[in-house]
Amino acid sequence: MDYETPQFYRVMQYAARADRDVVEMVSGSPDWDPPEAVRDGLSAYAEADADEFQYAPSRGLRGLRAAIAARHGVDEARVVVTNGAGEANHLAMTGGLERFDGGEILLPDPVYPYYAGRANFLGAETTFVPVESDGRLDPAAVRAAASSETAVVVANSPNNPTGAVYGEDAMAAFVAVAEENDALLVSDEVYSQFDYSGRFSSALAVESPNVVATNAFSKSMAVTGFRVGYAVFPPTDGPTGDLVERATTRHMLTNVSGSRPAQYAVQQAMERTDTAYYEAARERLQQRIGRFCEALDEAGATYTRPDGGFYVLARFPDFPGSFENAERLVDEAGVAGMPGAAFGEARADDLRFSLTTPRVETAAERLVEYFG
Amino acid sequence: MDYETPQFYRVMQYAARADRDVVEMVSGSPDWDPPEAVRDGLSAYAEADADEFQYAPSRGLRGLRAAIAARHGVDEARVVVTNGAGEANHLAMTGGLERFDGGEILLPDPVYPYYAGRANFLGAETTFVPVESDGRLDPAAVRAAASSETAVVVANSPNNPTGAVYGEDAMAAFVAVAEENDALLVSDEVYSQFDYSGRFSSALAVESPNVVATNAFSKSMAVTGFRVGYAVFPPTDGPTGDLVERATTRHMLTNVSGSRPAQYAVQQAMERTDTAYYEAARERLQQRIGRFCEALDEAGATYTRPDGGFYVLARFPDFPGSFENAERLVDEAGVAGMPGAAFGEARADDLRFSLTTPRVETAAERLVEYFG
Repeated sequence: MDYETPQFYRVMQYAARADRDVVEMVSGSPDWDPPEAVRDGLSAYAEADADEFQYAPSRGLRGLRAAIAARHGVDEARVVVTNGAGEANHLAMTGGLERFDGGEILLPDPVYPYYAGRANFLGAETTFVPVESDGRLDPAAVRAAASSETAVVVANSPNNPTGAVYGEDAMAAFVAVAEENDALLVSDEVYSQFDYSGRFSSALAVESPNVVATNAFSKSMAVTGFRVGYAVFPPTDGPTGDLVERATTRHMLTNVSGSRPAQYAVQQAMERTDTAYYEAARERLQQRIGRFCEALDEAGATYTRPDGGFYVLARFPDFPGSFENAERLVDEAGVAGMPGAAFGEARADDLRFSLTTPRVETAAERLVEYFG
Repeated sequence: MDYETPQFYRVMQYAARADRDVVEMVSGSPDWDPPEAVRDGLSAYAEADADEFQYAPSRGLRGLRAAIAARHGVDEARVVVTNGAGEANHLAMTGGLERFDGGEILLPDPVYPYYAGRANFLGAETTFVPVESDGRLDPAAVRAAASSETAVVVANSPNNPTGAVYGEDAMAAFVAVAEENDALLVSDEVYSQFDYSGRFSSALAVESPNVVATNAFSKSMAVTGFRVGYAVFPPTDGPTGDLVERATTRHMLTNVSGSRPAQYAVQQAMERTDTAYYEAARERLQQRIGRFCEALDEAGATYTRPDGGFYVLARFPDFPGSFENAERLVDEAGVAGMPGAAFGEARADDLRFSLTTPRVETAAERLVEYFG
């Protein structure tokens, strides 16, 4: 599997070129508005003094870093503001490979393709741990797969693509596996605002020198194009206190710093957006999940209702989730989903539908008609 | 020399904490306003539809890439929009190390510290070629230093810190050295809008599979904080046509894409800023250069008047450019310059003064009084 070239574009382009109306359920970009404070922040920045158009501190605008540190109850020195969750994961994974023995990265299967692509690009060995039938990674399976060769374990909760959410016990077990194998747990929590189960627990709840948590405002504020994310590294006075320094250096020598207008707007929005915005986004998605799962039932699909995130993985009878069938679904049903094969082997027969479209109702009707 | 931790901050912080008024001539951030169209572009973007807040194409907004390609008369497929010139140089240097034989990077001395820091970080061998007394790199010296071990040659024109500008012949000679040694010339042209000699020539003037040119809007539009730059890779149908693909993959797996508000504003400003803006910036700097060099003459300093860029390198009698003396100059003269030692050995006795301050007159008077 060539994870280095994400396959999202292939299906999106096929759908865009189709000779009929298609509900696009491939991309993970929110279709709703960012908080008003994001727009206001950008407008205010546009009028700022000339010196505010110059380099932000490499680790991020001070107020933004302070707000992130306060949100997680950690020392500011542990926080690096990054170019989205993408760079946060990049810094965490490269840091883990450099700092811990072994050259192997443990990944869930199905896997968010960027993790696997990055692992391949970095020349790491990859070992995939298949999820259970309900879409969750069993900590015991991760423990069985881990060894002294393991340098990095990646967990993602709420999960893309399965919708699984890991509670406190599961997260503690993942941390323990990392500690027992002298490895780094990279906990990608970019969907943390989209937990419908009330069970989500950050890996930072466990005090450990073997954990880096990554996150971003891309999904929570519907600004995937801004590229404002962050990583929280282990305490600087602990045995892996050098991880944050190394990541800071890598970040500086790769990007110098992040984009300041975007950081400024996000900082404003952190201060001035009340919880109603996030609740409305969750409610919108829960309604869509409800409607879409109803249709899946009618269409005879096998699936697990997501506990978090934007996505539903579903398997239709006699319709494996190949690229060929994803294209057929575009042409014949007018719905574009992502082939399960793009996420690995464990769910190669599924299709992933992103609920980031106002046309979930239309898609639901079309799938019922096509499969029902 | 520990280039991995740029020393800019050390002197800037010392100056900021000083017990007296100090003219800060350390940082390379323009002190003048960005084009109005940058501010207008950001304001317009703040009102855009929600879908414009989502991911830009990984290689950059289409209109921006097209405008960059048109500016340089190259195929759009050769252009990757990056997180500033920093990421452009990162992609070019890593690509050169991977694609060409040998593990050595040739750098000028004095050197912009980020090049050397990145080379060290990437585990490359570095060989420094000292510039001539007038601050220029002699192509013959570069040729003599190059060998089959050389994978990358870095040239920077107009130069930071020497102010040298390379004309067509010198650039062609650097390209020839790269070709003869099966290496990549990385031509950093980020100060290209600040040529006072009329002699500047882009490395892209030479059609070669061994050249990557990097640039950014950071200095030309006075938006170092935006992080919008680009790299132009060799033609895709040539023997090194894979360089742009590899860089695209690295960019995607590191950053996913660049920040869209900043790209949008820069694109607007490319279309709507007339040459008067750039001329005014050049004129402003030339006046500052004139005044500052007058003071250097009175102070008995040895220097070469810069042909381009923002900086003047100068050596004062019996006052070598150590960190200690830079701090002494802060305390005793109220002027903060960058120690030559931060840029390598060839000009360790010089100090670098950045002319990105409206207080050049004050600095000039203070230096004359202190050294005169």
